[in-house]
Amino acid sequence: MVEQNNELLDRAFMALADSTRRSIIMMLAGKKRMRVTELAAPFSISLAATSKHIKVLEQAGLISRVQSGRDHYLELNIERLRSIKDWLAIYEKFWVERFSTQEEFFADEQVAGKPVKPRLKRLAIAKDCAS
Amino acid sequence: MVEQNNELLDRAFMALADSTRRSIIMMLAGKKRMRVTELAAPFSISLAATSKHIKVLEQAGLISRVQSGRDHYLELNIERLRSIKDWLAIYEKFWVERFSTQEEFFADEQVAGKPVKPRLKRLAIAKDCAS
Repeated sequence: MVEQNNELLDRAFMALADSTRRSIIMMLAGKKRMRVTELAAPFSISLAATSKHIKVLEQAGLISRVQSGRDHYLELNIERLRSIKDWLAIYEKFWVERFSTQEEFFADEQVAGKPVKPRLKRLAIAKDCAS
Repeated sequence: MVEQNNELLDRAFMALADSTRRSIIMMLAGKKRMRVTELAAPFSISLAATSKHIKVLEQAGLISRVQSGRDHYLELNIERLRSIKDWLAIYEKFWVERFSTQEEFFADEQVAGKPVKPRLKRLAIAKDCAS
């Protein structure tokens, strides 16, 4: 099960490592379902190149092809995008728990002998992430 | 600026598309800073292979190498991980706004002529993501 989840996460992260594919995801998030030609319209690349990007996203399970009469549409699989969010939530939990109090934070800095100020910013960000 | 952000996101997503690299991120989130040998210990791969994974994470800006006396440590760059979370937050905003009321949701389904039940589950998930 863990292996399977790892493979799904690998494919999802890999598919999102491209700005065109991220734009396609954004467009589908805004419009619900779209034709391939509609998705390809804003890009300077060919329809064939856009189709390849769409295929990568489909194989990663991030989008699905649905049929309505004679028309084929693409739509977002929010569950798969959510698996990425869930993964990020785990690391945040660890991080915020580590610096749960400023006292612990400062004590840690003094041992390391590093300047305190830059880390204060990071602590603030970590707490913000958890909210 | 957008181009630069896109490149950073490309590299961050690509670096996370590997379960060993994700495990390294998790370990650093739990321990704050660690030596390369400590990070390599739980994996069945060689120290050299682990070092390569660490290099990919460093190049993606997800972790940094810090020196304390004679020792070298690796630590997490939470800001870069946060850029991924920020990207995910944008798509969620779009998605949840699209289905802000059940009325709009059902009207949309009737036009598409598709069964309502599976989509109800997705709506619930989308609303949960926004909380």
